Amino acid sequence: MKIGIDAMGGDFAPKAIVEGIILAANEIPADTTIVLIGNVQDIQQIIDNQNYKGTNIEIVEANETIEMGEHPVRALQSKPNSSIGVGFKLLKTGEIDVFASAGNTGAMMVGSLFSIKTIEGVQRPPIAGFAPQIDGKLAVILDIGANADVKPEMLAQFGVLGSIYAEATMGIDTPRVALMNIGEEEEKGSLVAQQAYKLMKENTSINFIGNIEGKDFFKGKADVIVTDGFTGNILLKMGESLYGIMKDRGIRDEFLDKTNYEAVGGSPIIGVNGNVIIAHGSSSATAAKNMVHLCRKVVESKVTEKIKEALS
Amino acid sequence: MKIGIDAMGGDFAPKAIVEGIILAANEIPADTTIVLIGNVQDIQQIIDNQNYKGTNIEIVEANETIEMGEHPVRALQSKPNSSIGVGFKLLKTGEIDVFASAGNTGAMMVGSLFSIKTIEGVQRPPIAGFAPQIDGKLAVILDIGANADVKPEMLAQFGVLGSIYAEATMGIDTPRVALMNIGEEEEKGSLVAQQAYKLMKENTSINFIGNIEGKDFFKGKADVIVTDGFTGNILLKMGESLYGIMKDRGIRDEFLDKTNYEAVGGSPIIGVNGNVIIAHGSSSATAAKNMVHLCRKVVESKVTEKIKEALS
Repeated sequence: MKIGIDAMGGDFAPKAIVEGIILAANEIPADTTIVLIGNVQDIQQIIDNQNYKGTNIEIVEANETIEMGEHPVRALQSKPNSSIGVGFKLLKTGEIDVFASAGNTGAMMVGSLFSIKTIEGVQRPPIAGFAPQIDGKLAVILDIGANADVKPEMLAQFGVLGSIYAEATMGIDTPRVALMNIGEEEEKGSLVAQQAYKLMKENTSINFIGNIEGKDFFKGKADVIVTDGFTGNILLKMGESLYGIMKDRGIRDEFLDKTNYEAVGGSPIIGVNGNVIIAHGSSSATAAKNMVHLCRKVVESKVTEKIKEALS
Repeated sequence: MKIGIDAMGGDFAPKAIVEGIILAANEIPADTTIVLIGNVQDIQQIIDNQNYKGTNIEIVEANETIEMGEHPVRALQSKPNSSIGVGFKLLKTGEIDVFASAGNTGAMMVGSLFSIKTIEGVQRPPIAGFAPQIDGKLAVILDIGANADVKPEMLAQFGVLGSIYAEATMGIDTPRVALMNIGEEEEKGSLVAQQAYKLMKENTSINFIGNIEGKDFFKGKADVIVTDGFTGNILLKMGESLYGIMKDRGIRDEFLDKTNYEAVGGSPIIGVNGNVIIAHGSSSATAAKNMVHLCRKVVESKVTEKIKEALS
């Protein structure tokens, strides 16, 4: 297995990313190679400083970097040799099995759509996040930001994609799929949510359990939480803020620890022809290490192949 | 001042409501009367059981009750003598200065729109909630559920209404108004949010500070948080769930205490021709007591009159 990592992406790159990758390299099996993409000299120097002597890190040169604030489409077009541009080339040709970056989220999204492209039958690929539950598990929440405006059909399909993802990568049998809404009853909510409810109820390929409300977000009621990319992004970011808030107040707790984004490692784009993970912009070495483990899990699960099969 | 309270509304009514009102009656000034609306016999019995001897509680008979699950419009039409129906009659004629209920939210909304009606110039009245901030203050968040689908103009007006509310009732000078969004930049977010940003930026009657994200929800960045009723409802309910979750985990904290809905007492409908407060369906006696104090504050602030002036 070859895991491609953008060494230059993220607020603390390349140092935090490379240091995290070295931590991961010491934990992964011998048949797994991490392919670091970026400025070879910079990367090599961090590896040397860390005194890493292992053999499962490779470096591929990318002499440009897309900055966080750049316009995704323009940046990818004008910087084909950027670490994100090179990463998608390697992913498309099969030289890596998964590509992950803590860099420009928009560029990762655009790269996915234009380079490896959407799986046939997928309307608009969502980004999936992970919401910690009080029962100790994680729920998949999607979309968390790729599609701020959605149609009912898209929400219904997010349910299908999330269900396949939860089953393949998390080993959950017939995952409980819920629609995030402002009331339990079928007729509650926005016009889009009302229509989505009907479509999801009729869809026999998912185990739709109905609406859940904001108060249920952490309560372990669902394995897959379906929502638009606007609501999902705001909810997840609010949830992630709890770890820091309570830590500053001197409160540590196992549940709160799981709201720390570092523990999760990243957010997969679901429904594209390849495995793509978007990591948090402020990824630390710990986050980068966990990004590698998430990459491994996604590749091993063959979730992308399973989505293709399900939609064919 | 006369504070009208629906004694029959809420999961634990009339007992919890009346008991809470008695707690409040012992705390309010002598010039304030609480008008309890509902079944006189039931209410009087609870008052007698509590051994209340004060003089600032009156009872007005309403021999019907709108249940939580009833269709708002049909219920109000078929039950004119319900506690909610009678409450709006008293509010309209000026026999009470404010009307609050922990009962059917939809009926309270419909009653407001059809009975006392929307203030001229207000497009769609929002319901305001209160989000605890880590600096110890509360931020006004609106809409929290009246309007699941919104237009940009409505969001912009929520900003104006919230700003007047925060200034009048909370004493905040030129309140900081923010738009809840999925990125800080102007061009981020849903189509509605993007358009609303432009309108709010151009509106010189508010102190618009731009977008805030989910991670900023508790951070004390804004005094007024503007969002649609779908996102706002989900966010606020998720926030309110924290108190119970952490209490069950044995963790108490001053900030978490403020996420307990009981502390707030209710949510005002803003932009109608009268003072209306919707309280939490599961209101306890403590919540009912705080509902009275919120009612007092709203009446004293003359916020409804100030909104009329501002929009005339």
